[in-house]
Amino acid sequence: MKKIGIDAISFYVPSLTVSMQALAKHRDIPYEKLNRGLGLEAMSIPDVNEDTASFAANALLQLFESNNLDPREIGRIYLGTESALDGSKPTATYAVEVVENKLKDTFGERCFKNCDVLDMTFACIGAVDALHNSLDWVRNNETRKAIVIASDLSKYELQSTGEYTQGAGAVAMLITHNPSIITIDDTWGVATKSEGDFFKPRRLYNKSSIFKEVIEQLDLSYSDEELNRILNSSNSEFWSNPNDSVEVFKEEPVFDGQFSNQCYSERITEAFDHFNSINSTNFLNDWDHFVFHLPYAFHGRRIIFNNWLQWAKTNNTYQKLVDDIGEFDEGNKKDWLKKASKSNIYRDFVNTRIAAGERASSLIGNMYTASIFMSLVSLLCDALEKDIDLTNNTIGFIGYGSGSKSKVFQGIVQENWKANVEKIQLFEYLKSRTEIDIDTYEKLHKCQLKQPVYNNSHVTMSHVESGETNKGLRRYSIN
Amino acid sequence: MKKIGIDAISFYVPSLTVSMQALAKHRDIPYEKLNRGLGLEAMSIPDVNEDTASFAANALLQLFESNNLDPREIGRIYLGTESALDGSKPTATYAVEVVENKLKDTFGERCFKNCDVLDMTFACIGAVDALHNSLDWVRNNETRKAIVIASDLSKYELQSTGEYTQGAGAVAMLITHNPSIITIDDTWGVATKSEGDFFKPRRLYNKSSIFKEVIEQLDLSYSDEELNRILNSSNSEFWSNPNDSVEVFKEEPVFDGQFSNQCYSERITEAFDHFNSINSTNFLNDWDHFVFHLPYAFHGRRIIFNNWLQWAKTNNTYQKLVDDIGEFDEGNKKDWLKKASKSNIYRDFVNTRIAAGERASSLIGNMYTASIFMSLVSLLCDALEKDIDLTNNTIGFIGYGSGSKSKVFQGIVQENWKANVEKIQLFEYLKSRTEIDIDTYEKLHKCQLKQPVYNNSHVTMSHVESGETNKGLRRYSIN
Repeated sequence: MKKIGIDAISFYVPSLTVSMQALAKHRDIPYEKLNRGLGLEAMSIPDVNEDTASFAANALLQLFESNNLDPREIGRIYLGTESALDGSKPTATYAVEVVENKLKDTFGERCFKNCDVLDMTFACIGAVDALHNSLDWVRNNETRKAIVIASDLSKYELQSTGEYTQGAGAVAMLITHNPSIITIDDTWGVATKSEGDFFKPRRLYNKSSIFKEVIEQLDLSYSDEELNRILNSSNSEFWSNPNDSVEVFKEEPVFDGQFSNQCYSERITEAFDHFNSINSTNFLNDWDHFVFHLPYAFHGRRIIFNNWLQWAKTNNTYQKLVDDIGEFDEGNKKDWLKKASKSNIYRDFVNTRIAAGERASSLIGNMYTASIFMSLVSLLCDALEKDIDLTNNTIGFIGYGSGSKSKVFQGIVQENWKANVEKIQLFEYLKSRTEIDIDTYEKLHKCQLKQPVYNNSHVTMSHVESGETNKGLRRYSIN
Repeated sequence: MKKIGIDAISFYVPSLTVSMQALAKHRDIPYEKLNRGLGLEAMSIPDVNEDTASFAANALLQLFESNNLDPREIGRIYLGTESALDGSKPTATYAVEVVENKLKDTFGERCFKNCDVLDMTFACIGAVDALHNSLDWVRNNETRKAIVIASDLSKYELQSTGEYTQGAGAVAMLITHNPSIITIDDTWGVATKSEGDFFKPRRLYNKSSIFKEVIEQLDLSYSDEELNRILNSSNSEFWSNPNDSVEVFKEEPVFDGQFSNQCYSERITEAFDHFNSINSTNFLNDWDHFVFHLPYAFHGRRIIFNNWLQWAKTNNTYQKLVDDIGEFDEGNKKDWLKKASKSNIYRDFVNTRIAAGERASSLIGNMYTASIFMSLVSLLCDALEKDIDLTNNTIGFIGYGSGSKSKVFQGIVQENWKANVEKIQLFEYLKSRTEIDIDTYEKLHKCQLKQPVYNNSHVTMSHVESGETNKGLRRYSIN
């Protein structure tokens, strides 16, 4: 059987962070709730000249430089994101352009000339889809190599319930035959149901109405006819547009947190069932480590508890649990379940199989499509740091995208995993970041700053074009 | 060698059209320029309750109904679009939801439960990418079936140079082993270069500035301090948003038509070279029919002329051309090239190998990602109508997406192609559409109409949710 999987990994996370302790204090939320409850310590905040494309470009460039890759051998670069910068031009092309410019000194012009570049969109699971499709493509020819990038920006309204789960960054992965880090099986559990648990719609406003709101705010009074005449005679690009509607894009999603948790739980359970039905086994027997899509660090351990409990009943684990906390009591169901989730046996399960993959999330926050792959990087770098040998360990991957879909798959860590993981230096980098205060963070959030706060990143956005035929086109440069 | 390709096809095009004759008259453009020059006769205009998801849902439902497909056998539904309705939730999920609801009477609830659903974005080539990836996925297991949907809305500013190339609609294709219509080879010529020839950026406005523009328009005068106080005290959702910037989405692209033609020509030439280098042949020797991405009907025949001329020089075609129009004359280069492009020998090439694929485009306009597949449908339905047997004919596909990428690939028409193509009824449907006058068209364009003009389509958008946690979520229904 062909062995295909991840041969090398790199990442990029903005160098600015907000500490959860400072945010909790400012928002008057008990820090314990965020830290011990959700596992949050810090969140990554992009500087004014950073966006999804610059995150992706930094991770992509790092992948080439750390691994001495020849770009002419890479047949595709697929990017998963739900923070695309354009409705038509893929965010991946912006990232590839800047890296191609950098690599031309060594490899000549157009070193990605015959490379297939593409964006995939399905909320937080788009990069899993990019991986899935790239594995299929590589599988069909021994010489093929692909790169998958997950890049995203998780931004929520100030003072909203999502605010403390923000984050940003990218992960890039080289997909090859006989990979040095991990092989991925061609067994995919899939579950889909169209839901509106979290999405980024266009927000429709009637132009006359928002014009009128100004007039009313000024306590003035005009007839509709006069207003229309004034509106139609405007020279302003915004107001003179002939369309009666204005469609506003916002990075901040519309969402229902509790409903989204329910969708996550239902979809992954359906995907487990699908996976088990193909694989004729149960993931909880086989997986040494769990890597989740993590909207916040402790999300996986919370969500998987019910599945674990069901699995426990199929073997002697349940008896051990009962020995520890007593028989299940229907009358005190909620208490018993709480005790079970805090039992030594479940805690051991979390500590040995889930916690290492949560470490990075605690320090970065939600990276949307990149979260699940950052969880893999976290697990690998944690093992390296602690000198744990993962060779031949099975890692289970649990992806989820709102809207909604889950994919469940697994991989086996390869013998030479350490050599390539040593280059990643995740926790070293995370320690080197710069903490900003809440005032600076809020200004960044409101787009009130014009100059970068502090930027040591390689690739940044340099400017946005303003000509008639290229207005809005973003340009990037390498420091 | 495994035979994988397109087993069945369906399409959806809005029932409203604007005639090019009427538009030319209103815009004071010579009709000849649009009709004889570009091949335009009519363009499809969506009604007020139609969008990319409803187009896709109609084509998808048609595919199931015409071919009695069992939805539980479909492992993936991938959609290519550059008119996505949301930044996170795939447009494909909206389409799948409404079709799943319709099919539940026959197949039970959640008949797409284990189906992989996804959006792909790369301007007009996203659906070619969806096809490419779905072919790879189907190839790896004999039981797999996939559906690829191309759905798009091509909308340009009123009175702009793009206005007469508008269009809309969707094509859906069933991908299987041993397909009845056409097999697709696993040889792909690919060329990529990041360009800004056509894109759909977010348009950034400073909220204070557009507020001030109203004040100025009213000839009023306030200090900046007063203005900020007024702005910040607003209860309006639009004005009270804490972000200093407003990002506006517009369906209409930013583009440079001439530069985009040049990118198209350069990318497809590079993709031809790549394709020929893998295939050790030349497409112009092998292809019986050419199917292009067509921004307007005659775009393919225009763009391919230079490639044809280069190819002609490699065989006796060039001598025949010279016999017809005389030797090449560097001094009168432009004239000679014009004569060559209007020569009998090139005209024959166009009429026998390209024209059949242009027919639908003349009557619909630009369908962006769906254009190339509508060109295939046009070729197949034209041959059926004229009783031409395409069996074993080689069809060459030339895809292009601005931003920019080209993919070149080929397929062989299968013995039983007629049986499934007979169900499509393309030209019959196109004749049955309703022409609207320019006044109605302009009102639709400006979003001034609230009620549908005339709608006989199966699936339409019924409403948009407005609750706190689902504002902007679109709902669809089946008439």
